[in-house]
Amino acid sequence: MPSYTGPVDDLQFVIHDVLDVPAQNVPGYEDLERDFTAAILGEAAKISSEVLAPLNAYGDQTGVTLENGVVRTPKGFKEAFDQLRDGGWTGLDCDPEYGGQGMPYILSVATGEMFSAANQAFMMYPGLTHGAYSAIHAHGSDDQKSTYLPKMVTCEWTGTMNLTEPQCGTDLGLMRTKAEPQDDGSYLVTGQKIFISAGDHDMSDNVIHLVLAKIPGGPEGIKGVSLFIVPKFMVNEDGSVGERNAVSVGKVEEKMGIHANATCVMNYDGAKGFLLGEAHKGMRAMFTMMNEARLGVGMQGLSQAVAAYQNAVDYARDRLQGRDVTGAKNPDGPADPIIVHPDVRRMLMDQKSFIEGARAFGLWGGTMIDRARSAGDEEAEAMVSLLTPVLKGFLTDEGYDMTVQAQQVYGGHGYIEEWGMSQFTRDARITMIYEGANGVQALDLVGRKLGLKGGKTVMAFFELIKDFCKENAGKDAELDKAFLDPLKTASKQLQEAAMFFMQNGMKNPNHALAGSNDFMHLMGHVCLGYMWSRMAFAAASKLEAGDGDAAFYETKLATGRYYMSRRLPATAMHLQRILSGADDVMALDAANF
Amino acid sequence: MPSYTGPVDDLQFVIHDVLDVPAQNVPGYEDLERDFTAAILGEAAKISSEVLAPLNAYGDQTGVTLENGVVRTPKGFKEAFDQLRDGGWTGLDCDPEYGGQGMPYILSVATGEMFSAANQAFMMYPGLTHGAYSAIHAHGSDDQKSTYLPKMVTCEWTGTMNLTEPQCGTDLGLMRTKAEPQDDGSYLVTGQKIFISAGDHDMSDNVIHLVLAKIPGGPEGIKGVSLFIVPKFMVNEDGSVGERNAVSVGKVEEKMGIHANATCVMNYDGAKGFLLGEAHKGMRAMFTMMNEARLGVGMQGLSQAVAAYQNAVDYARDRLQGRDVTGAKNPDGPADPIIVHPDVRRMLMDQKSFIEGARAFGLWGGTMIDRARSAGDEEAEAMVSLLTPVLKGFLTDEGYDMTVQAQQVYGGHGYIEEWGMSQFTRDARITMIYEGANGVQALDLVGRKLGLKGGKTVMAFFELIKDFCKENAGKDAELDKAFLDPLKTASKQLQEAAMFFMQNGMKNPNHALAGSNDFMHLMGHVCLGYMWSRMAFAAASKLEAGDGDAAFYETKLATGRYYMSRRLPATAMHLQRILSGADDVMALDAANF
Repeated sequence: MPSYTGPVDDLQFVIHDVLDVPAQNVPGYEDLERDFTAAILGEAAKISSEVLAPLNAYGDQTGVTLENGVVRTPKGFKEAFDQLRDGGWTGLDCDPEYGGQGMPYILSVATGEMFSAANQAFMMYPGLTHGAYSAIHAHGSDDQKSTYLPKMVTCEWTGTMNLTEPQCGTDLGLMRTKAEPQDDGSYLVTGQKIFISAGDHDMSDNVIHLVLAKIPGGPEGIKGVSLFIVPKFMVNEDGSVGERNAVSVGKVEEKMGIHANATCVMNYDGAKGFLLGEAHKGMRAMFTMMNEARLGVGMQGLSQAVAAYQNAVDYARDRLQGRDVTGAKNPDGPADPIIVHPDVRRMLMDQKSFIEGARAFGLWGGTMIDRARSAGDEEAEAMVSLLTPVLKGFLTDEGYDMTVQAQQVYGGHGYIEEWGMSQFTRDARITMIYEGANGVQALDLVGRKLGLKGGKTVMAFFELIKDFCKENAGKDAELDKAFLDPLKTASKQLQEAAMFFMQNGMKNPNHALAGSNDFMHLMGHVCLGYMWSRMAFAAASKLEAGDGDAAFYETKLATGRYYMSRRLPATAMHLQRILSGADDVMALDAANF
Repeated sequence: MPSYTGPVDDLQFVIHDVLDVPAQNVPGYEDLERDFTAAILGEAAKISSEVLAPLNAYGDQTGVTLENGVVRTPKGFKEAFDQLRDGGWTGLDCDPEYGGQGMPYILSVATGEMFSAANQAFMMYPGLTHGAYSAIHAHGSDDQKSTYLPKMVTCEWTGTMNLTEPQCGTDLGLMRTKAEPQDDGSYLVTGQKIFISAGDHDMSDNVIHLVLAKIPGGPEGIKGVSLFIVPKFMVNEDGSVGERNAVSVGKVEEKMGIHANATCVMNYDGAKGFLLGEAHKGMRAMFTMMNEARLGVGMQGLSQAVAAYQNAVDYARDRLQGRDVTGAKNPDGPADPIIVHPDVRRMLMDQKSFIEGARAFGLWGGTMIDRARSAGDEEAEAMVSLLTPVLKGFLTDEGYDMTVQAQQVYGGHGYIEEWGMSQFTRDARITMIYEGANGVQALDLVGRKLGLKGGKTVMAFFELIKDFCKENAGKDAELDKAFLDPLKTASKQLQEAAMFFMQNGMKNPNHALAGSNDFMHLMGHVCLGYMWSRMAFAAASKLEAGDGDAAFYETKLATGRYYMSRRLPATAMHLQRILSGADDVMALDAANF
């Protein structure tokens, strides 16, 4: 059975030694001193390993069941949810006005990585609730806020997001669900929604569905979509839970993974709903929190890689098989632990160097969201908007690959469910799909985000890297060579790719779109290369100062060198593919595939 | 529910237009005229789509169950097996002396791709039997051959291969299973074997286990391992099935995929066994057929990619979502089919160009095995030994990735079991692990095969490509540029990598081993680049001659161009990683992961 340990030291390193969060001029950050974050992260790590992780494999094996219209979650889930609620974790970064802890978002990123690593399927119940909370908080009337938010902050009531229908996924303009206005100002919502995560369950007193639907007579397509609050149980005047609304679970899907989360077909049969925000502006309301939601999924992808990696390391240290070709490392035993073998090392280093780079990238993204949200910094808002598709797409594509690598370390045992490694792979697989499939992320990046503010944001990104390199060049010849040189090369390749899109995408947009996935990965590597460079200089300065755990900083530098020499070179391949344009991609008639 | 269509036209193209099999000087090949192979492949395609494929998802959902010591297979499996038996398919390339059809091995490669694509879990029952048949055929006494082979050719009796034990997988020297000699010349076998595919089931009258075990007093480690025939039921003098032997199923494993194949823990409790081949030479006997077995697994990896791809294409043509950015392709419909979108194209072209290249590679490997087996060609034997780890490792790594891509084409539906795409991914996953995990393949390639015949075999491989390029250069400037130039570049990169290993592996073998996985992939790309170049020239000459289906050949050329421009460039990345050596890979203490 796999285990999980929260990486508190590494989170602390990024938050304090790399990003120096308390010194950033963001409201709330001044409180995030080292001891304070250590206490919070330590407590979250404890819950993760002691409460959530032990339920993970069990939840996968048991799954959820639909009984008489109600979804039953695995035994122990409700008690774990109560512990999360009692500790105030569900409202960590929520508005104190509604009972939240009012902490900066970066703490949610850090604790969220741990919670999801311990039990992704479970964490989707509070996760979806948080999304619904955010939408109501941003767009709800005072009355809606006071009715729903206090209960959603505590997760006494949970939430869902209803977008997809059988005929419409990415293309929400094809939506058919209708919302007919009633005399009392409410709407009757009718239609079928699919893939509704946490759509129903037995762990809360109410489920508050946020539902996209079209008001008859409104604009065609995506411009006529509105957002509605549709509670499972109507809420009485006194705030208590009242009558059942006309919304029901049609089916619970059998999925490849996240078995313990209820992915529901939801049927709305004239269910009473309340307009959230303006009519026909539903997409805008639904996507207000898109950067956060997508960063959250990126962190899920990372989190499964972390959980899988930790167990792969344990296995590689314990499993005795073969001998170190340079001389036995365990001469008194029947064989050496497989961690001595170079190809096992390669797999573990791929994972470790991805994980630590991705963690820093995610936390950096978190600071930008805080900066945008609490300090009203528009440049930070633009920068995180640019990076969001990379955070989501790159971290989940790579995160998934790393779970596959971790499984591979186990050999045959990796394929047996009892050992638990298959679950990380199966659970991670969804992160590449939901919250906008990764192809849609790549399209968003190339089709929209590169042109953000007329290209100024992506230019600012390149400047950031350039400035960093300039600032640090010459401090240490070894770091120049191992980090700054390859970072500069990769960054130039990314610029060349962006230039190719500009020059060729005008006459034929397919020349840009055919390279979108490669661009997303190229940019992901540049971001991780940048993060690794920042971490390397931070570690080196700690070592120079003789401050802290030298082994930790040495390991950090060695892991970074691995990333720069072994992983970053993928950028040249991505560039070459991009520069080949669209012709070979689009050559075939659809009939000839 | 997914469907499957055997790619008969493409198999015919490779067998006839590319490899020109009937003209090769190999016994048996003279009969493989175009019409003859078309008839055989057509019949195999029919069984695949009509008999095997319809049971695939059902087998996945149902799985096998252990009831009172007997494994029950899903309903319909036995009837399907009977059809395979009745058609003579289980003995297609088996010795006519024992009831086989005596066909060349290449036909087994071609039909095997289709059978496995249709139902991998099912095909493992006859597949393992074929492996056991081959070992007995090569090493058995006349008496053993006449006792077992006729029943195994027809699969009235099936077979298994028993290598792994809880403490020993790759490192078989750690084996504990004992075989104690008895006065009658038999042995009593005692021990536990795990991961025994097709270990038991209800579709045959007997199961003939081939078991590796140690005769007490023999040499230590791997040199003291012998191979034994241990039948589930003893065979009477008259050839009928007799008493039950002391071998039993301890457990059936729950796995990520291939649910319909019984992966058993087998307990041998003083089971009667018969030495197969010489004492202490069990490894040699077990691995006689290694090239075939590993090529077979490579083809399984490919086969899952094919099945997944075919369904992804269908879905991409049917699913309406969004508009072609260059102008609506389905203006009267609510949206365009997603196959218009460049990133969907990219995914499908990745799959298609891998599949067709890999298919040619596998069939080429098959001709070398025939040449070695039937014409006693030692160079062909050496060449296929060199290529075997690439055929196994590269085709399964990439094949798996392609199933993941195909799943991605489905968006959210790809994650729902009902749609069947998850199964291809889950089933394909095992091919990277069993029959020697892919890391072990890479080790075999770099540690052993590069040095085969003092390096002459790998030099012959490079010569082959060089000669091909020389022979075809200048025929067609467009083909030179699109195919020969990138092939030459990639081949040079592979040579540079081999040279690096030679120069650095001597002082520290880790410099070679740390690059072994990248070398395997680099070489895989060179092999597919070579195959694509051969296919391109074959297609071009057909087009020039105005011979056959022009659209087929045009599509072939376009698909090849895609491979060369978009996939082959991975070689430079692999080379760069290889040249970075072992230092960054081996830098960390085991404690610091």
